[in-house]
Amino acid sequence: MNKYHEVANKINIYIQENNLTRGHKLPTLTELESTYNVGKNTIIKALEVLETNGVIYQVRGSGTYVRGRHRKGFVNLTDVQGFQNIFREFNLSSEVIELKEIEAPSNITEILELTDQETIYYVKRVRYIESRPFCVEESYYLKTVVPYLNKEIASQSIFNYLTEDLKINIRFSDLFMRIGKLNQEEATYLQLETQDPSLTIESIYYLNSGRPFNYSNIKYHYEEAQFFVQGNNF
Amino acid sequence: MNKYHEVANKINIYIQENNLTRGHKLPTLTELESTYNVGKNTIIKALEVLETNGVIYQVRGSGTYVRGRHRKGFVNLTDVQGFQNIFREFNLSSEVIELKEIEAPSNITEILELTDQETIYYVKRVRYIESRPFCVEESYYLKTVVPYLNKEIASQSIFNYLTEDLKINIRFSDLFMRIGKLNQEEATYLQLETQDPSLTIESIYYLNSGRPFNYSNIKYHYEEAQFFVQGNNF
Repeated sequence: MNKYHEVANKINIYIQENNLTRGHKLPTLTELESTYNVGKNTIIKALEVLETNGVIYQVRGSGTYVRGRHRKGFVNLTDVQGFQNIFREFNLSSEVIELKEIEAPSNITEILELTDQETIYYVKRVRYIESRPFCVEESYYLKTVVPYLNKEIASQSIFNYLTEDLKINIRFSDLFMRIGKLNQEEATYLQLETQDPSLTIESIYYLNSGRPFNYSNIKYHYEEAQFFVQGNNF
Repeated sequence: MNKYHEVANKINIYIQENNLTRGHKLPTLTELESTYNVGKNTIIKALEVLETNGVIYQVRGSGTYVRGRHRKGFVNLTDVQGFQNIFREFNLSSEVIELKEIEAPSNITEILELTDQETIYYVKRVRYIESRPFCVEESYYLKTVVPYLNKEIASQSIFNYLTEDLKINIRFSDLFMRIGKLNQEEATYLQLETQDPSLTIESIYYLNSGRPFNYSNIKYHYEEAQFFVQGNNF
């Protein structure tokens, strides 16, 4: 991580820890320079990073303001982070339905851009928040990137395992959302009725190199899941 | 718009017009400098803008690559743009159910951060793609920002009217999504059944100054609407 990303991170943490809300004015450039003990250019670049990531906005001739307008319990889809981080205050658990090594089926071969028959991990889980089913997830991981996975890890946060234990840098993600109706199997897992509404999110996660290494298909419980997206006009 | 945003725009248009797809390598910094006749710093900043907006990704020691992995017909929620721009190839129309000036109800007063009883426009529309209902929308516009609106304008693209005729700069947006079931009125507008799945997106649009000026509540047709979100890990 370079210097200005470090400073951006620190300012972000400062905003979160102090629960600064929308419209709160941040200190001036000069004040930020002396607080973080870095030069003006580093502060300018750090603020640019925070702005494009929807944390702050800068008004010419006026100053820098906190943008955040999150609603509690809404999953921010623009951020790349695991549920464990989004639902910090809640009790999360996962039931692993299936975990196995498989040869990639053709649709996964295409999505993960496999050049030959690479082995992948297939994981199917039901995830709970405060013991209520939140989503049912099928996920595929490239074994060359995730060399080991077991039921114990999958019953916790796979995201934390990838980022903290395997030190994988997830660079970006693409999410595709559709609304539909639950089939019988999905309804059973989510403790809902067949034909109830469902939200499907397919997501592809990419490494620093731009290589896709994980594909997931998640069906959310329509009464439990709420989402937040920040748009930017550049 | 400053120089590097201009160059970013040009590169973006170049990518779109040439239908460059994921993984396509862009010219080197030096080549881009001479193509756009600007200095190295301008190119570096333009590429940063494009990267944080999910258009490209840069791999250290390797180069710059096109990121885009859109799927046709999916609405990109990370971009701030009107349906007219998203569904360029399709025939769009809007039926204006209601358009009137009202005093802001208390929930709108709070969302749009009104200091006193400012007048607002209320617009209710059903929007169609190729004559099939796509969504039913209730939208509120600050009259101090949008001084004039009529049924003719509302039956076209309000977004284009705001950005092209009124020259309003929309800076960013916040979107909140929930899944539920349609009530009878919504089902009638969308030509669906009561209790069918619905996706509700509430959105707030902000000016350059950070001031919210528009709030919308949109219910989407569950078989017609599909969404795309790009996530970034900074």
